[in-house]
Amino acid sequence: MKEPVLAKPPLLAEGIVTVDKMGEIPLPEQIYRAIRDAVRSAVLRPGTKLPSTRRLAAVLDVSRNTVNAAYGLLLAEGIVSVRPGSAPRITEDLPPEGASVSLSGSPAAPLLSRRGETMAANLRGRGWGHRFGAFQPGAPALDCFPYEEWARCLRRAARLERGADLLYRNFAGVPELQKQLAAHLAVERGVHAEPEQILITSSMQSSLTLVSQALADAGDSAWLEEPGYVGARTAFHMAGLSIHPLPVDGEGADIAKMPAAAAAPRLIYVTPSHQFPLGARMPLARRLALLEAARTGGAVILEDDYDSEFLFSGRPVAALFGLAEEGQVIYLSTFSKSLLPGMRVAYCVVPPALVEPLAQAVRNFGCAANVQAQAALASFMDSGGYRKHLKNIRQIYQARGSLLVETLKERLGNSIEVDRPTGNVQLALTFRQPRDDVALALEMHERGFAVSPLSSYYIGSEKRSGLVVGFAGATEKQIAQGVEALGDLLANKRAG
Amino acid sequence: MKEPVLAKPPLLAEGIVTVDKMGEIPLPEQIYRAIRDAVRSAVLRPGTKLPSTRRLAAVLDVSRNTVNAAYGLLLAEGIVSVRPGSAPRITEDLPPEGASVSLSGSPAAPLLSRRGETMAANLRGRGWGHRFGAFQPGAPALDCFPYEEWARCLRRAARLERGADLLYRNFAGVPELQKQLAAHLAVERGVHAEPEQILITSSMQSSLTLVSQALADAGDSAWLEEPGYVGARTAFHMAGLSIHPLPVDGEGADIAKMPAAAAAPRLIYVTPSHQFPLGARMPLARRLALLEAARTGGAVILEDDYDSEFLFSGRPVAALFGLAEEGQVIYLSTFSKSLLPGMRVAYCVVPPALVEPLAQAVRNFGCAANVQAQAALASFMDSGGYRKHLKNIRQIYQARGSLLVETLKERLGNSIEVDRPTGNVQLALTFRQPRDDVALALEMHERGFAVSPLSSYYIGSEKRSGLVVGFAGATEKQIAQGVEALGDLLANKRAG
Repeated sequence: MKEPVLAKPPLLAEGIVTVDKMGEIPLPEQIYRAIRDAVRSAVLRPGTKLPSTRRLAAVLDVSRNTVNAAYGLLLAEGIVSVRPGSAPRITEDLPPEGASVSLSGSPAAPLLSRRGETMAANLRGRGWGHRFGAFQPGAPALDCFPYEEWARCLRRAARLERGADLLYRNFAGVPELQKQLAAHLAVERGVHAEPEQILITSSMQSSLTLVSQALADAGDSAWLEEPGYVGARTAFHMAGLSIHPLPVDGEGADIAKMPAAAAAPRLIYVTPSHQFPLGARMPLARRLALLEAARTGGAVILEDDYDSEFLFSGRPVAALFGLAEEGQVIYLSTFSKSLLPGMRVAYCVVPPALVEPLAQAVRNFGCAANVQAQAALASFMDSGGYRKHLKNIRQIYQARGSLLVETLKERLGNSIEVDRPTGNVQLALTFRQPRDDVALALEMHERGFAVSPLSSYYIGSEKRSGLVVGFAGATEKQIAQGVEALGDLLANKRAG
Repeated sequence: MKEPVLAKPPLLAEGIVTVDKMGEIPLPEQIYRAIRDAVRSAVLRPGTKLPSTRRLAAVLDVSRNTVNAAYGLLLAEGIVSVRPGSAPRITEDLPPEGASVSLSGSPAAPLLSRRGETMAANLRGRGWGHRFGAFQPGAPALDCFPYEEWARCLRRAARLERGADLLYRNFAGVPELQKQLAAHLAVERGVHAEPEQILITSSMQSSLTLVSQALADAGDSAWLEEPGYVGARTAFHMAGLSIHPLPVDGEGADIAKMPAAAAAPRLIYVTPSHQFPLGARMPLARRLALLEAARTGGAVILEDDYDSEFLFSGRPVAALFGLAEEGQVIYLSTFSKSLLPGMRVAYCVVPPALVEPLAQAVRNFGCAANVQAQAALASFMDSGGYRKHLKNIRQIYQARGSLLVETLKERLGNSIEVDRPTGNVQLALTFRQPRDDVALALEMHERGFAVSPLSSYYIGSEKRSGLVVGFAGATEKQIAQGVEALGDLLANKRAG
């Protein structure tokens, strides 16, 4: 079956990439599609070098920005890979030639649907988000989790014959957990809601998927912090929304900086208590301006409050949900950062009128959470164990974050900028001089450090280059070794 | 704000319902939409009687079947309700006039998107599926579950610091559970797959949602057993598929009876080992014919094997997955029936080429299962506890099913037909003479028995009337009382 390896035409061969400047499809997308299709149909082989952006721009008579944007799309989908010090190439380990997802042996090969390709996209870039090691962003510390206590809560919860909750009742949440959360949110976050308004789901990601699809139709517009959470971008992408970057500065998202030409959004995703990934707290005036803009524009705000429970110092800013009129804000949170992602319990607080339809949607989608884990969590909260755990990790995470920042500043203060984190499980550092952060992050991965390139959190073409570094689980030794490794890379190589 | 209650026009008033016989929208849908919109815009009030199908058919000059189908849609969406002995009416407890889901107090009320309305639909009919009591279809017995043993497994699993599985690794399943399932499926079901082909999800419903959307685009055609599983219908409905009923007889789904005019399907949903809800096993010849038809038509078969693990007698028929060429079949199963729905662990076996994209889709959708429950399940399977539990519930369920059938035959043999169940947690009985099974089921609900009307499992206008009765959790007393209640209803009232 193996055919002899034939020479394949280079990418610039006539007809492989052409653009229609009068066409409806944006130019970067035309270039991206042409290259993608050439790879799929095996016209371009894995390993083929891409021409420089300057050269392809000249050949096609388009701007370099256009080619840059097209290459960005190819990179995001993993069709193209970048290694430090060499030109981008068609990725080597793509599925066999012919089609990216065809099934051999079947005359009627089930391909993913067009929608399925969207669902299967990894917007982190091929391979990103599947790498593990020290410094992984988003990960809480495994060594601080109270396994014994949690195991006892689980056992106690699982010994009970809980009646119809274990069958098909209360899909949107076990009532005692909803009650605990309602009390907790009222006290800690100024979020006042009836227990049934708190829908329990299996993850922040399923909350985002559910809410984006239930509140917006394909083609609707959504605004997303720039840089921002890739999980939200993924949910919007799967929902077929038109995503617009919402500028972020040292005070978080700034609605006033949104270009006037941007389409009125149906959804606005923000992280006011601790901007992800840069860390800013949004001042009250800006929160009110955001609410007012959303109100006049008829948008719903998705407030992701994922880490307000373990800010290191001071009180978190009041949640938008509590400041807003009813129905303006959906409040989202998760136990993934405060406890463990593997627990798969998250929740969203919705307006009364959406309780019934969204509870039914949780059932129809099948994204309800494990009932025994929910019950265990309710008792863990009720006993004060959860509050004690938060206090504990706040101290440990603050110490680890501080040590990381001190070590970074001491060793690399000339090349990077970084602030002491005010909370959370990760921080972002930026470079004083532009660097290819994707290449740097890949090099760090090869050394066992799972940092992410800051540029990968941006949608638009203006990206800051830097690294997002998880510190919650980092030991002293890992911090010392990781900073050393980064220093070597910054000193020895001008990556990119 | 309260307006005086004004007289509202009757449904037959000029202009409320009109049809365009030359239009593209099917006539039943036109009628359904007209009535729905009139209810939404408060032109028709809750409680308004619908005219008889004969009368409306005459007024609109369409067939009675057309009006019947329209009423069926309204009933399924809960816009219309039927009570025994009276005409169908606009449901009384609909949300307030004006809009079905508007938010008071907000000038820019966030309505569900069009897609959101689909996601929030309850195809079981308004209120169905949220009622609880004896005889609930689909429910395993809560009194047979080994709570102590399971609680110990969970505790042991939760005490371990499991490394990155608890963070963001192995979204598509904990490896030891995938291995246990691979071994189990090979021995018990002739399903031979590598462990990584077994994707663990949070429910059968999330598997169906994921697979329908990833393999089919909106507008694609899907065939569904008639009568068939409402969960599959819901997933197809949310995916925007065009759903066609696949005829079922005493040997299960019969592809040969499919009308030649039906659009070639992208997906075919079947339950070959034990047809849901009628119970037939599909003979080998018919399974092969189904595979051949799917192969030539380029369809993917979704094989829901939800209950093959606890058939009461004999071996289950070989799974289609093992008979098929690679890529023809996706095999779906769940622990909801063999253990507990509240565990929220299910799985699907997919072809090798779909492993990577669908694993990413599980992550993007957020429908992964609780990690500690997965690990506990792996040890429960490894220790032999799962096998012992299956053997135990097989005997108990068989005894309960037999007692139910004997009692039904003894007391109601003249009015109903019912067979001894060969497996599962529920059975279907049919009436010797046509009955309004929706009205009967509602009456049973009021007496505390959560049976479902058999007609609600049908899509088309030809429905068998009967009841689906869960027996797994039924005590002797409940069986005696439930059959007595049904007998009274059948004797005293000619429901409908």
